[in-house]
Amino acid sequence: MTVQDQRLAEVQTPALLLDEAKMTRNIDRLAAHVGGKGVMLRPHLKTAKSTDVARRVLTDGTGPATVSTLAEAEVFAEMGVRDIIYAVGITPDKLGRVAALRDKGCDLSVLLDSVAQAQAVAEASARLGQAIPALIELDCDGHRSGVAPGDPVLVEIGRILHEGAAELRGVLTHAGESYEMTGRDVHRALAEVERAAAVGAAETLRAAGLPCPVVSIGSTPTAHAIEDLTGVTEVRAGVYVFFDLVQAGIGACQQDDIALSVLTTVIGHQQQKGWVITDAGWMAMSRDRGTAAHAVDQGYGVVCDEAGQPIPGLTVIKANQEHGIIAAREGYEGEVPDLPLGTRLRILPNHACATAAQYGAYHVIPSAPGAPLLTWPRFGGW
Amino acid sequence: MTVQDQRLAEVQTPALLLDEAKMTRNIDRLAAHVGGKGVMLRPHLKTAKSTDVARRVLTDGTGPATVSTLAEAEVFAEMGVRDIIYAVGITPDKLGRVAALRDKGCDLSVLLDSVAQAQAVAEASARLGQAIPALIELDCDGHRSGVAPGDPVLVEIGRILHEGAAELRGVLTHAGESYEMTGRDVHRALAEVERAAAVGAAETLRAAGLPCPVVSIGSTPTAHAIEDLTGVTEVRAGVYVFFDLVQAGIGACQQDDIALSVLTTVIGHQQQKGWVITDAGWMAMSRDRGTAAHAVDQGYGVVCDEAGQPIPGLTVIKANQEHGIIAAREGYEGEVPDLPLGTRLRILPNHACATAAQYGAYHVIPSAPGAPLLTWPRFGGW
Repeated sequence: MTVQDQRLAEVQTPALLLDEAKMTRNIDRLAAHVGGKGVMLRPHLKTAKSTDVARRVLTDGTGPATVSTLAEAEVFAEMGVRDIIYAVGITPDKLGRVAALRDKGCDLSVLLDSVAQAQAVAEASARLGQAIPALIELDCDGHRSGVAPGDPVLVEIGRILHEGAAELRGVLTHAGESYEMTGRDVHRALAEVERAAAVGAAETLRAAGLPCPVVSIGSTPTAHAIEDLTGVTEVRAGVYVFFDLVQAGIGACQQDDIALSVLTTVIGHQQQKGWVITDAGWMAMSRDRGTAAHAVDQGYGVVCDEAGQPIPGLTVIKANQEHGIIAAREGYEGEVPDLPLGTRLRILPNHACATAAQYGAYHVIPSAPGAPLLTWPRFGGW
Repeated sequence: MTVQDQRLAEVQTPALLLDEAKMTRNIDRLAAHVGGKGVMLRPHLKTAKSTDVARRVLTDGTGPATVSTLAEAEVFAEMGVRDIIYAVGITPDKLGRVAALRDKGCDLSVLLDSVAQAQAVAEASARLGQAIPALIELDCDGHRSGVAPGDPVLVEIGRILHEGAAELRGVLTHAGESYEMTGRDVHRALAEVERAAAVGAAETLRAAGLPCPVVSIGSTPTAHAIEDLTGVTEVRAGVYVFFDLVQAGIGACQQDDIALSVLTTVIGHQQQKGWVITDAGWMAMSRDRGTAAHAVDQGYGVVCDEAGQPIPGLTVIKANQEHGIIAAREGYEGEVPDLPLGTRLRILPNHACATAAQYGAYHVIPSAPGAPLLTWPRFGGW
């Protein structure tokens, strides 16, 4: 046993494992792809929720970054990140926390898609005596929030920000639908949808005499597929740092790229049913069933041995709160190994964001061969 | 505004709210039902994961209690609970932590359903010089773990424990299938299935000359429905402390009994689609879709106003990580209120265990009228 094996054997299960070498490979791949096109990458830190991971994702530790909660903004600003977009629609009651972070020297910008929000940001900017920068969210694919393409409210919102006390920082869009569609070519087409919506909106704002310095697009699938970034100033992506079975299922990565797994122990069997029962139930995996509608439904996760090698045919077919039930996939005719009581396994998760959220720390298998495991704390909350 | 309203208005969203009055009513109802039959109630603390809640659920703060993780056992033992069943199949590597808790004066017992586990517990008991008490898990309804009714391995396991250095504490079963079935009469029938399996196994053990002091059954639906407890020494239930939409959907409670909700803020709209977008996505609600197969699918939750009154017709129809999408139920023809930016709502969760797990604390609305809100920390992990 190497030192790593010894330490891994000491970790109580269930536990969240992070393969540093795979993570680094994932980080470098997208940085090279986007950087190679002369455009800035603004990693989304909502999956990581860890300063240790953030330091490895951000070029020099100061940003740029994207976050999904003000808690993330607060932690990463404290760590020294100086350029953050809070990429969830702002509400008036959250502007106090935004202003407090800006006062501390973090250039935090907010997102909005309505006149009411723009008025609230302009009013807060006037009241607080500082121009809060805001990006206008665009709905490029009907996924959730954002101004629809061609909606004249875009210019109205821009004007309220620019002519009021706020700052019109730019436009932002996210092809959330890309998570439901498979294949690099489809993702490239969706990236072009993002680009066209964002660049078109930027042109509309500029034609109206308004500034639009930032043109921000991105999602993990589209960021990896995109070729043409004309007019775009930055690309965002988040789950690519770890990847997961959903991303593998839609062709945004290979299964071997998945850097995150759940270490679990076999606690029992129902021999007649072919069930192996583990201590990684849905509390350990999350309730996310993101592959349910995929060509290959991965249940609650793909089963690997303790070293991380997938075991052919096995998935977690069912989960109770603290019980995972492993069995052969429907129709699988191959051999299934004996997994006696106490066997330790790793489960690849459907959705890294959801699974990681169930844990207070990553147990990190370091890139350096034989180096001892590291523990990187992670946080949650809002 | 009362003091409570003022404090509630200050809580940043999303946040987990706990209605103390409803919780107390839920606790008292089951205590009266089970206690009225002269049988001990052993509350399951896996949903609560809070010492503040535990002190209100446990008769005198010392137990008895059930837990689903050793982390729970450790926290509650530290709080003073002296009688705990760890109700998930034990593995050899966890016995060190079990013994450490027993050394500190907590009568922690473990659960098992195999010869291999019984041997491991007997060996650890011999090695550590203390008899670790174990209950044999019975599979009364094919739900997951447990010895099947009539399987002769029951006596074999009992003998290994009793004749080895361990302690045969009794038998335990849980009608997990009751969560999938609707109606008090059905739950009562399942309670009888639990009782018959447990009492039958206890008789088998005793007939073989083995002790079986504890005969433990229960689940929230069966515990509320059960009438005949002959031969049973204790009843377990957990989620009843808070209840949720799954329990309401199967008729184990009324929707008005649900003590837990998620406070959220409207962050935007897609008017043409009839969508109201909030800051309570699946990170705030969990990915649990436990009502998906019910007669009434509640989406990601039932929408209430800030005071907790359900708004007819509205559910959370879709959830992204930090975005909840509220819309009218399919087929709903009634009026839907205008919910402008900044409106605060409460969402009733599908599954209290899963939703509560997304939070580090409960914001408690105290029973006492006008009293200020309390904050009760909660923990996670294993």
